[in-house]
Amino acid sequence: MGDSLTMKILREHLVSPAGSPQPGQEILIRVDHTLTQDATGTMAYLQFEAMGVPRVRTRLSVSYVDHNMLQTGYENMDDHVFLQTFAAKYGIYFSRPGNGICHQVHLERFSEPGKVLLGSDSHTPTAGGAGMLAIGAGGLDVAVAMAGGPFGLPMPRIVGVRLIGKRQPWVAAKDVILEMLRRLTVKGGVGKVFEYHGPGIRDLTVPERATICNMGAELGATTSIFPSDDITRAFLRKQGREAAWRELLPDEDAHYDELMEIDLSTLEPLVAQPHMPDRVVPVQAVAGLALDQVCIGSCTNSSYHDLAIAAHVLRGQRVAPNVQMTLTPGSRQVFATIAKNGILADLIAAGARILEAACGPCIGMGQAPKSGGVSLRTFNRNFEGRSGTPDAKVYLCSPETAAVSALYGVLTDPRTYPGGYVTEREPDVYDTDDEGMILPPAPDPERIEIVRGPNIKPLPVRGPLEETLQAKVLLKVGDNITTDHIMPAGSKILPLRSNIPAISEYVFVRIDPGFPQRAKQAGGGIIVAGANYGQGSSREHAALAPMYLGVKAVIAKSFARIHRQNLINFGILPLVFANPSDYDAIAQDDMLTIEHVRDQLRQGPDLTVSAPGGRVIRVRCEVSDRQREILLSGGLLNHVRQHQGSEHATQAAASHLASATMVASNGQFRPGKPLAEEVHA
Amino acid sequence: MGDSLTMKILREHLVSPAGSPQPGQEILIRVDHTLTQDATGTMAYLQFEAMGVPRVRTRLSVSYVDHNMLQTGYENMDDHVFLQTFAAKYGIYFSRPGNGICHQVHLERFSEPGKVLLGSDSHTPTAGGAGMLAIGAGGLDVAVAMAGGPFGLPMPRIVGVRLIGKRQPWVAAKDVILEMLRRLTVKGGVGKVFEYHGPGIRDLTVPERATICNMGAELGATTSIFPSDDITRAFLRKQGREAAWRELLPDEDAHYDELMEIDLSTLEPLVAQPHMPDRVVPVQAVAGLALDQVCIGSCTNSSYHDLAIAAHVLRGQRVAPNVQMTLTPGSRQVFATIAKNGILADLIAAGARILEAACGPCIGMGQAPKSGGVSLRTFNRNFEGRSGTPDAKVYLCSPETAAVSALYGVLTDPRTYPGGYVTEREPDVYDTDDEGMILPPAPDPERIEIVRGPNIKPLPVRGPLEETLQAKVLLKVGDNITTDHIMPAGSKILPLRSNIPAISEYVFVRIDPGFPQRAKQAGGGIIVAGANYGQGSSREHAALAPMYLGVKAVIAKSFARIHRQNLINFGILPLVFANPSDYDAIAQDDMLTIEHVRDQLRQGPDLTVSAPGGRVIRVRCEVSDRQREILLSGGLLNHVRQHQGSEHATQAAASHLASATMVASNGQFRPGKPLAEEVHA
Repeated sequence: MGDSLTMKILREHLVSPAGSPQPGQEILIRVDHTLTQDATGTMAYLQFEAMGVPRVRTRLSVSYVDHNMLQTGYENMDDHVFLQTFAAKYGIYFSRPGNGICHQVHLERFSEPGKVLLGSDSHTPTAGGAGMLAIGAGGLDVAVAMAGGPFGLPMPRIVGVRLIGKRQPWVAAKDVILEMLRRLTVKGGVGKVFEYHGPGIRDLTVPERATICNMGAELGATTSIFPSDDITRAFLRKQGREAAWRELLPDEDAHYDELMEIDLSTLEPLVAQPHMPDRVVPVQAVAGLALDQVCIGSCTNSSYHDLAIAAHVLRGQRVAPNVQMTLTPGSRQVFATIAKNGILADLIAAGARILEAACGPCIGMGQAPKSGGVSLRTFNRNFEGRSGTPDAKVYLCSPETAAVSALYGVLTDPRTYPGGYVTEREPDVYDTDDEGMILPPAPDPERIEIVRGPNIKPLPVRGPLEETLQAKVLLKVGDNITTDHIMPAGSKILPLRSNIPAISEYVFVRIDPGFPQRAKQAGGGIIVAGANYGQGSSREHAALAPMYLGVKAVIAKSFARIHRQNLINFGILPLVFANPSDYDAIAQDDMLTIEHVRDQLRQGPDLTVSAPGGRVIRVRCEVSDRQREILLSGGLLNHVRQHQGSEHATQAAASHLASATMVASNGQFRPGKPLAEEVHA
Repeated sequence: MGDSLTMKILREHLVSPAGSPQPGQEILIRVDHTLTQDATGTMAYLQFEAMGVPRVRTRLSVSYVDHNMLQTGYENMDDHVFLQTFAAKYGIYFSRPGNGICHQVHLERFSEPGKVLLGSDSHTPTAGGAGMLAIGAGGLDVAVAMAGGPFGLPMPRIVGVRLIGKRQPWVAAKDVILEMLRRLTVKGGVGKVFEYHGPGIRDLTVPERATICNMGAELGATTSIFPSDDITRAFLRKQGREAAWRELLPDEDAHYDELMEIDLSTLEPLVAQPHMPDRVVPVQAVAGLALDQVCIGSCTNSSYHDLAIAAHVLRGQRVAPNVQMTLTPGSRQVFATIAKNGILADLIAAGARILEAACGPCIGMGQAPKSGGVSLRTFNRNFEGRSGTPDAKVYLCSPETAAVSALYGVLTDPRTYPGGYVTEREPDVYDTDDEGMILPPAPDPERIEIVRGPNIKPLPVRGPLEETLQAKVLLKVGDNITTDHIMPAGSKILPLRSNIPAISEYVFVRIDPGFPQRAKQAGGGIIVAGANYGQGSSREHAALAPMYLGVKAVIAKSFARIHRQNLINFGILPLVFANPSDYDAIAQDDMLTIEHVRDQLRQGPDLTVSAPGGRVIRVRCEVSDRQREILLSGGLLNHVRQHQGSEHATQAAASHLASATMVASNGQFRPGKPLAEEVHA
């Protein structure tokens, strides 16, 4: 049998193992591009800096600013200036605030079919719309990739999603991914890559394909991808980057681990109800619901067509008086395009509130609905409280549904709109002049001084794993604790992402406001938890900040996958009760001891913990050899630094890549020359 | 001698005294228009509601939303919905969020030469650019005016400012008011109205005149005003409101209390240095200063020409890489106009960050500069910390200077810009369709339910003044305490403006974090202060929140004028040491007693206070008869309610106005008909 396009790309990038890895087996792959955004970027770059590498070793690394743009205090702009100067010094392209959302800009200006992109944002898979294998990861993983190291992940199962038919008018790409969520749920994609193929893909433009790949993250998928075909080529041509195109299709007899089919012609407008993206029903089923707010934008739906359809619906009319409507262009390219052709004028005249080209309300950075308000959004997540309003009810839908609903003030099936559908899904030409907006690295990095505002604190590190661990139980929690419980986000805490000492004051505060103080007074300790500890967002701060507070181990009934890796990355032992009933035998403030923990770990996976009253509790720490080494080193950063200059895989991979990457990282941006030529020269 | 135009308007509106009042004498005037913004409006409307009046009795009242639009929590939109439903019920026009800054929109869509506007915002004088007598006041004063009561103020000195000559290219209206500030300082306008006249006024459009009147607030002036001439008429014609025009000029032999002259042809580009608007020097003198941020916008400089000049300078170029540039249109009208004619497209392409039509960074709602950053802004205030960054250095200048400086990245005299000046200072036509954006009051107010989110708490009131005051000294402070010390603002506290219990938790916290708790535990008390207590911003929350905490009296060496009136309005005794050295004899926690305080006040102005150890301290409470009655009632609100239905001036004035006002407050907005016709019909 032939290869899927996912397998073709993996084969081109596989560092280990040799041959054809089986699903679940750990693989290491070479990374071509990295991207960061500002909420994860400052930490990723501090980590990169700590590795002592003078210049990124990737083909292309880009630093975007799109999260922290409200700037209610000095912290945000301090971060921006740090990121800008860091990028100039270390060979990274810098996309200025106002230039757009990382995923949209990367798709437009940098995407390359067949290349691997690693990004410190969970919606990095967006670039799969242009045939990239694009994966989200923690900032430290991205830092390692920038240093030339490979990225490790379990070999995913590859799911072939065959699309047939053609959508009806008013049915959007968003409805395709909502249909996927309806069928598979938010856990349905774990450990999988969704590879779309079949005749139906010709019904989808690259930005539409990107919408589907973007929100594949909500399936829990490793990533999603579309073939690179003549539609991709036309998109890249309009972007002035046809040279970046290569045809990339699955073999006709490609092997898929699973198969699905969606007949696009049978789809209807869908909506995800509060508070989960998979609570999907037809719009028709809940039509008439009164709305308080409608938001079009986010990395899922902020391309040209998404705003054009809103203007088409609202032209010469007004947003319903009971509704506040916001519109967020995904990039300066989109913004400039709709400003030139009159679409923006129509939207302003219609009373829409135009927000900056940034993440904005999708990450709770502004535009919180009223108390108990109903908000209809074209975004990707509708978790409880994420909007900034704890009791708001957020629904997710397509721009088509959002625009028609904003006009009428109630949730409305857009097919009932009396006007015709707009057929122009892409503009004839895009504004491709990045000069002065995407700043190239400095030609003279030694002259660049990195500016660090007072909110940017040095990266905390811990030493190697102790010989014996003796520590108190600082907190005992139940099942299903999320990373939002451990390290809350939101507009007040997010600006502290560059300042671990400051953000650590918020660890667990929604469960136990006294936790940070208690942990510091005790000089650290151990967390005891129930099942599925660390579910939800992948934020590494949920491991890094507890590490800063001295947390040495978490003993749980079970862990969520990504958080467990983050614990390992930051040198916190993830221990599982061999006998779950032992959970009940431990109380807060109990002093626990793991004698000879380094030796026990080397001999693992079984370890013994001494509890008060002479009791012995058995725990397990099942890790790969590489993960064990990381834990013994006290975290991935220590591990990488110890092995620099050795024959270790990280460095080997870096050398392997050096010749290819130095071309890009030395890139001299010449004004007036399209950036794409630079990067791909 | 003849009348100034200020005197003509005052004569038409004078309720008392009869004849020609002398400067300093208390006058009561009839109010035609009121405006509120959302940060002061919720409290003003709660106060209006407490008066029990079913419908506003003004000719026109408008409720704007322009301050709290970041919406980082539910509080802001809760306020918006409260304001919208309140306006519908009580006969008030509602300008939706996104429709623009109150002063800019009022100028465009509602200004009427010769009428009196009272607004709960210190920059209300902006409408003086169209020949209105427009005055800023506390929310309670505005509420009384909405209930039909007159507005009391000391008769101002009228200063004639004769303008001659014609500005050189690149010299802006902003430079005229910066020249005024350079000459007079921020205290130079206290108790004065600046009336501009002379041949030079023909060099200024209405929006330019509005810039000058707006920033007259920084002189400490009561207000500023320009004649209503054919330039005013042309402006109103473009606004579709020529019917609102009347010619209004000073008599040829008008009497002015003072005279000044400015030869416009001699002006050069000016800049106010940190941290005060009167620290004015020529741009040339500080040219070359490296910038981190440039902001064009605010109620001072966000009209069409202000943004057009920026586009003229930046067209086809990029904002310097070291600068973050923001642009804030003043209104949806301005935004729609520049979106239609390509100016907005040029600005987006140039890399400017486009913010909503709102106050935004001018009131520290976002866009805080980096730590220690240098920010060049076209705004009106550059007080230390107001930008949101405590150590930022903010400079104030014209849009011309800002735009050219943004291009080069350093403070630059715009006359050095190699391109020509743009001469088109107003567009040929404005977008005058307000339908659906400025919502008229409901025709069926009884059916409107006012929506109160959990952040909108009932208005706290105190009872009448006690027979005897006995209370502890809660806090002893020094000289020059500002209202910012008493009741801080900023993006975290401003959303609590509708919630006195919540915002009272921040009273004095920057001086003494334990104050709110201590005040509540003690059941209230007394503040002891040095000289000039309550200087700075006019915010009434600096009296209302302490009243809520039980503060009964402030004993100080002296008071700032506006805050003293606010203390009276909220029933807090403003007492002055007869012998300033007694200040030293009182300590925090001392129990003070004012026996028979009502009787003492009636017999005033001298009162005696018993202090520990049998000491007697003499204090003075110099108030007008009206102010004494307000204090005895326990505040202005109690006073108004007690006198409703009586022959008291408040009610008399209300009756006097009733016939004229009910026409407007009953206004039925008919779609498609220009709003101006409605209001002025």
